[in-house]
Amino acid sequence: MAEQEEDRDLTVPVVNDGLGYPISVGYGLGPEIRRFLRERGSPFVVLSDAQRDVLAAARIVAKAPRCKGVLAFPLGERRKDLRTLEKVLDALLAAGVDRATTVVGVGGGVAGDLFGFAAASYMRGVPYVHVTTSLVSMADASVGGKTGVNLAGGKNLAGAFADPVAVFSDVRRLETLPFRSLREGLAEVVKAAIVEGGAFFETLETMAAHPFWRWPWVEIAAEAVHVKSMVVADDRLEAGAREVLNLGHTFGHAIERASAYRVTHGAALSVGLRAAGLLAMRTGRFSLEEHVRVLALLALLGLPLRTRVAPDLILAAMSADKKRRAGKLRFVLPLAIGDVEYGVVASERTVASVLRTISQLPDDSSES
Amino acid sequence: MAEQEEDRDLTVPVVNDGLGYPISVGYGLGPEIRRFLRERGSPFVVLSDAQRDVLAAARIVAKAPRCKGVLAFPLGERRKDLRTLEKVLDALLAAGVDRATTVVGVGGGVAGDLFGFAAASYMRGVPYVHVTTSLVSMADASVGGKTGVNLAGGKNLAGAFADPVAVFSDVRRLETLPFRSLREGLAEVVKAAIVEGGAFFETLETMAAHPFWRWPWVEIAAEAVHVKSMVVADDRLEAGAREVLNLGHTFGHAIERASAYRVTHGAALSVGLRAAGLLAMRTGRFSLEEHVRVLALLALLGLPLRTRVAPDLILAAMSADKKRRAGKLRFVLPLAIGDVEYGVVASERTVASVLRTISQLPDDSSES
Repeated sequence: MAEQEEDRDLTVPVVNDGLGYPISVGYGLGPEIRRFLRERGSPFVVLSDAQRDVLAAARIVAKAPRCKGVLAFPLGERRKDLRTLEKVLDALLAAGVDRATTVVGVGGGVAGDLFGFAAASYMRGVPYVHVTTSLVSMADASVGGKTGVNLAGGKNLAGAFADPVAVFSDVRRLETLPFRSLREGLAEVVKAAIVEGGAFFETLETMAAHPFWRWPWVEIAAEAVHVKSMVVADDRLEAGAREVLNLGHTFGHAIERASAYRVTHGAALSVGLRAAGLLAMRTGRFSLEEHVRVLALLALLGLPLRTRVAPDLILAAMSADKKRRAGKLRFVLPLAIGDVEYGVVASERTVASVLRTISQLPDDSSES
Repeated sequence: MAEQEEDRDLTVPVVNDGLGYPISVGYGLGPEIRRFLRERGSPFVVLSDAQRDVLAAARIVAKAPRCKGVLAFPLGERRKDLRTLEKVLDALLAAGVDRATTVVGVGGGVAGDLFGFAAASYMRGVPYVHVTTSLVSMADASVGGKTGVNLAGGKNLAGAFADPVAVFSDVRRLETLPFRSLREGLAEVVKAAIVEGGAFFETLETMAAHPFWRWPWVEIAAEAVHVKSMVVADDRLEAGAREVLNLGHTFGHAIERASAYRVTHGAALSVGLRAAGLLAMRTGRFSLEEHVRVLALLALLGLPLRTRVAPDLILAAMSADKKRRAGKLRFVLPLAIGDVEYGVVASERTVASVLRTISQLPDDSSES
C-alpha cells in the first residue's frame, strides 16, 4: 500500500480535452490502473503483446481482482492483419469474454490498433481500456479512436472508429525502451510540436541536448496528447481539419510502402517532415530559417533526414495512393512552426525534385 | 422511360419508423434504385452474391451512371467468415474504392451481414446501400444495423453496428425464389407476427391457405420491417427491449449449432418458436389455444415442428452459450400472440423436457 500511495503522488492529472474519455499520463501508473479496474467492477481480460517487457506490464495489470487471464500474441506491423485479428477474437471467445467483460490491451501502437479493433468488433463491441507501452502510442496512437489492421494493399485499410473507455500512459516504460523504439514516437512528438509551435517546440529544442532519461516525459507526452486531442475533438470523422495531423505522412507513408516496410514509421516520418518542409519552401510557403530549425531538431534527436529508398519508387507509391484518392495527391505543409495548411495540391515535377533532395545514394556510408 | 414510370407506380412508400435510414419495399424497384444512386451523385461499386439470380439483380443496379464495377463472391453461411471479408476488402481496394465511393451490396441475409461489415470497416467506414434479394433479409436482416461474420466458435461473433444509407427490398425477387429460400424468411415473418399480434398474425393465417405467389408481399414485408424497426428504434445497442426479437432464437441457434449448421436458420427458428411456446406453457405463461394457433400457422406454411438433432446435443449447445453469458440461460417467451416477455430464466430440467417433445427419432420418416 505504501508503494501504491507513493506511485499515485507522481501521477499527473488526466488529459482529455473534449475527447470523451480520460487519458492518464504519469510515472508508475500500475496501482492507478488496478484501482480503475477494481472500481469499474466488471470482469476483465488482458490482451498483451508477447514481448517480454510488455508482458511484464500486462501481468501487473492482471493483479486487479476479477481478471479472467492474460492472452499474449506476437505482434509487429507485419502481423497487424485480419489473420491475427481472428486469433485474438477466437481467444476472447475461448476465454469466455462476453459484453459485460472489459478488454484491457497492453502494448504499443500496433497493439492499440489491433486489440482496439478486436474489442470494437467482438460481439459488435465490448468496452476497451488501453495501456500504452511505447512513446508512439503515448504521444499519438492513444488519441482519436482509430483502430484497424493492414490489408495486403496498404496500411490501416480495415478498421473502426472506436473510443476506448480509458487510456493509461506510464512514462516509466520509456526508461527501458531502446532508442530504436523511442525514435518511432519522437518523430510524432516533433510533428505535434510543429503543429503547435511556441513553447512546446522550444522545449524540445532545449531538451534535445539532454539524454532522453532526463527528459520530463510526463509533460512532453501529455502535451503531445493535448495537441492531438484538441485537433481530433473538432473533427472526429476526418472531414478535414484533422488532416493537419498528417504533416509529413504523405511522404512518410510512401517511403514506408516503397521500402516494403523495412524503413520504420518513425524514420520515414522524420524524412517526410523534411520533405514537407522542402515542398513548402519551394512553393513559397515556409521560410528557410524555420525549415532549418526543424532539421536541427530532428538531427539532434538522432532522427534521419535522408532515405536510401529510390525517388522513383517513392513517387510510384505516392501515385498508387493518388489513384485511390480520386486523382489528386494532397499535402499537409508547414507555413510556420505553429501553423500548418492542409489540402495543398502540388505538381509531380516539384514533388520529384523534393524526393531527389532527400535521397541518399546506396554507396553513401551515413545511416539511413 | 415508360417502363421506369410503370415500375415506380408499383412502389409503396418508404418504411423507416425512427431508424434514421429509409427502407423502400416495392415491386420492381430497379429504376428507383438507379434513380437514388444517380441523385446521390457519388461513384459506387456493387458487391454481389455470385449466385446467378442475384448477380442478374446486381447488373441491373450497375446500370446507374458512375458505377465502378460489379464484384461477385460465392457466399453462404459457411463462407461468412473473416477470410471472405478479407477477399471483399482486397477487392474494394483493387477497384479503387475510397471514402467518397458508395458501396452497394446485393444479396440476402449473409450478403447484408458480410458486405455491411466490409463497408463498415473498409477505411474505417464507407457509405453502404443494401439491395435485398431474399425474404429473410427483407423481413428481418435489413433492419437494425447489425453486420458481422462468424468465428469458428459461433455465429455473428465479429462485426459492427453500422446503419446503411438506404435499403431497397424488391419483392418481385420473391417470385423466383425456391421454397427452401422463402422458408428462411417465413419463420422470421411468423416471429414478427407473434410479437405484433392482431391483424398481422390474422393476415398470415388467412394467406397461409393461398399459394405464395398470390401473397401481398409488399405489405407483408413492410409490416415485418415495421414491427422490427419499432422495437429496434427503442433499443439500438441491445440494452434489453430488443431481446423480444430473439423469440425462438435461443432454441433455434442451439439447433443450428448442434447440427453443425446442416439445419438452416429458418427451419431451426420454426422448431425454436414451437419450443418457446412449449416452455411458456409449461411455466404457466401461454395458453394451449394460442400455442396451437402458432403451430397451425407454421405447419400450413410448410415449416417444420420437430428436429432430428438429439436433445442432449441441443442442450450442450445451449450450455456453451450459457457459459458465455455469465452463467444464466435466458429465454424470450410468448405470453400471448402480441405479447412477449424477455429475460426469463428456466431450469435445465424443464428445458430438457421441452427438447424431448420437439425431437424426432432418426427412424421417423417425416421431414426434418
